[in-house]
Amino acid sequence: MARQERALRTRRLILEAAASVFDECGYERATIGEVVARAGVTRGAVYFHFASKRDLAQGVIEEQFEAEAVPERPCKLQEFVDTGMVVTHLAPIDPLVSAGVRLSVDQAAEGHLGFDAAPGWIARLERLLVAAGERGELLPHVVPADTAGLMTASWVGVQLQSQRFTGRADLADRVATLYRHLMPSIAVPGVLACLDLAPDRGARVYAEMVAARGGSAPEGATATREAGEPAE
Amino acid sequence: MARQERALRTRRLILEAAASVFDECGYERATIGEVVARAGVTRGAVYFHFASKRDLAQGVIEEQFEAEAVPERPCKLQEFVDTGMVVTHLAPIDPLVSAGVRLSVDQAAEGHLGFDAAPGWIARLERLLVAAGERGELLPHVVPADTAGLMTASWVGVQLQSQRFTGRADLADRVATLYRHLMPSIAVPGVLACLDLAPDRGARVYAEMVAARGGSAPEGATATREAGEPAE
Repeated sequence: MARQERALRTRRLILEAAASVFDECGYERATIGEVVARAGVTRGAVYFHFASKRDLAQGVIEEQFEAEAVPERPCKLQEFVDTGMVVTHLAPIDPLVSAGVRLSVDQAAEGHLGFDAAPGWIARLERLLVAAGERGELLPHVVPADTAGLMTASWVGVQLQSQRFTGRADLADRVATLYRHLMPSIAVPGVLACLDLAPDRGARVYAEMVAARGGSAPEGATATREAGEPAE
Repeated sequence: MARQERALRTRRLILEAAASVFDECGYERATIGEVVARAGVTRGAVYFHFASKRDLAQGVIEEQFEAEAVPERPCKLQEFVDTGMVVTHLAPIDPLVSAGVRLSVDQAAEGHLGFDAAPGWIARLERLLVAAGERGELLPHVVPADTAGLMTASWVGVQLQSQRFTGRADLADRVATLYRHLMPSIAVPGVLACLDLAPDRGARVYAEMVAARGGSAPEGATATREAGEPAE
């Protein structure tokens, strides 16, 4: 394995370990020692890639945007839906997504250290809404930035509620309810009637993404690890 | 002042002090000593009313449901909207509401200690949706429990986002955007057209509530303290 490839693999391993620690303990209680132990690397290796716990948290937030986007569709609002539904599918099984949510929400990190996945998700959704608008898919009153912000905020709230009430067992159902409530005020009727908003949509799209890359997960792509597959 | 009245006033004073401490520090960092200092009462007085920090947190959560409900309206969906909008108006100015949100969301309290205002809000909203359904105000597919849960979850997510991005300066606008997006999939068209979803709706309804009680806040009612009025 070339040296650069090995370094990337180690970096990824460290980020996955850090994600699982942040996800379980929160930012404040997380320690670099625990990340070292879980990653099975040396302390020196961690510090080679990340100068501090803060850097590790920032790395976890950013890593989720390294993942490939959902497959392109003729209907951009379906891509908008798919984006949220694939993340919904991954949240309970991918520590990077789960830790990203927790770090973003966690208010215990006094002074709001600024770990926030929301701006990245809002920007991604806003681009899709703008594209949808150019294709005539949006109702005339929709303001892409506002609707992207609302979608992101509501998803976070639904995720917290599902986590609290059922340990995320009903997350896909609750997110489907969210889309069923929001899309009628976003999509023109002809598009609305064609949208797939079923609770298992995220799982199906993700399976399609895995199949498209031949069933194997390229390194360095968050959303591309197989569900349940342990980190190497 | 009668002894019981004095005890209620002290209890309220302690809860307001506790709310401001939880709101600023979160559950884990909050101390009873700080509550004693802010309430200006003796440590003995705090322990007379509350056995532990845990009891104080539970008291803060419950106190917000002691507040009067919004005024009754012929249209139950307007009451549904008003309920969320008055809380939106109070969140930045009433520590009991603000601390209720923080305690409910705060995941730093390891093991999820079970402080959660959400079930109370969901139950209140569900009752209003059921009443709305009996009056023919709901679209046929609406399931009151699901929609009440979604509304509560989305509100929490919007509140977090507003707090994070603007220190709640745009909370009323963001919540109005939430209602504009959700109500078209809840209300029948004739009702939808009559709903007041303006960002200042919460402030107006709250002013009406204050005026209805002669402009003075009865003790022991969370949502009945005047905006900005310091605790006595």
